[in-house]
Amino acid sequence: MRILGIDPGYHRCGFAVIESSGRSVQLTGSGTIETKRGEALAVRLHALALELEQLLTEWQPDWLAVEEIYFTKNVKTAIGVAQARGVVLERSAAAGVPVAEYTPTTVKSQLTGSGQADKQQVAFMVARHVSLDGDKRLDDELDAIAVALCHSMRASIPEELR
Amino acid sequence: MRILGIDPGYHRCGFAVIESSGRSVQLTGSGTIETKRGEALAVRLHALALELEQLLTEWQPDWLAVEEIYFTKNVKTAIGVAQARGVVLERSAAAGVPVAEYTPTTVKSQLTGSGQADKQQVAFMVARHVSLDGDKRLDDELDAIAVALCHSMRASIPEELR
Repeated sequence: MRILGIDPGYHRCGFAVIESSGRSVQLTGSGTIETKRGEALAVRLHALALELEQLLTEWQPDWLAVEEIYFTKNVKTAIGVAQARGVVLERSAAAGVPVAEYTPTTVKSQLTGSGQADKQQVAFMVARHVSLDGDKRLDDELDAIAVALCHSMRASIPEELR
Repeated sequence: MRILGIDPGYHRCGFAVIESSGRSVQLTGSGTIETKRGEALAVRLHALALELEQLLTEWQPDWLAVEEIYFTKNVKTAIGVAQARGVVLERSAAAGVPVAEYTPTTVKSQLTGSGQADKQQVAFMVARHVSLDGDKRLDDELDAIAVALCHSMRASIPEELR
């Protein structure tokens, strides 16, 4: 199963491609999509959409995995993320790719055993699951890997045990 | 100038087409786009995108006008609106139609003279500017007409006087 994990944002959006087969999981690609500061929001969202379409065409994922929005964070930030997230969901549906949504707590809990885990702990467990080649990754990229990994793990658990 | 006003929402999205030429303003079409309850959010956002694409193709507007999101409203509602709004902005940019954004206060103030005007007052002034043929309109539709009217008025004022 191939999963495209996305950490939405209109300034910088993280992405990761995870290939899983039984217990084996591999990170086959990851990075960030950045849009130009100073451009109109609509133009930036469209630039994001074009790059995402390219990823969907290139990787032909079976699933797109994305976090739900954490309501208690800064509202202005949450609204910005939500606008980008809407574009990601819509373009995924347009490409016929089903979307799996997880709360931040589920992602942390699935990877570390605790829904209250901090960023370092999540990053540590991400590196235990997939090879990062020693490269430093941006937070958005790590978050995209984490949500894709979460979906690959959940999808391999029989539904009645999740 | 032809303006497509949009009041974004993933459940129900209002739209209105305003034709303005000098001091004359006409409402040439309005309505709502509704998506199916119970469908996945991504699927509903895509349904909205398809209907919006059809409006953009059919009406070939010079501008799309939309309200900015009012931050202090219910955060969960605001996030839902923001996801739909992201899709509206992105599809507009994809169609090459520039987007004009106005705060709710600017729209009210432009139409009624007061940024604190209530819904009834805005609806009353909308009906003074364009013929609604005595038909009852849904709030989302009236809001779409209001933001389109706001843009047609602002666009007719020399920039240094706005």
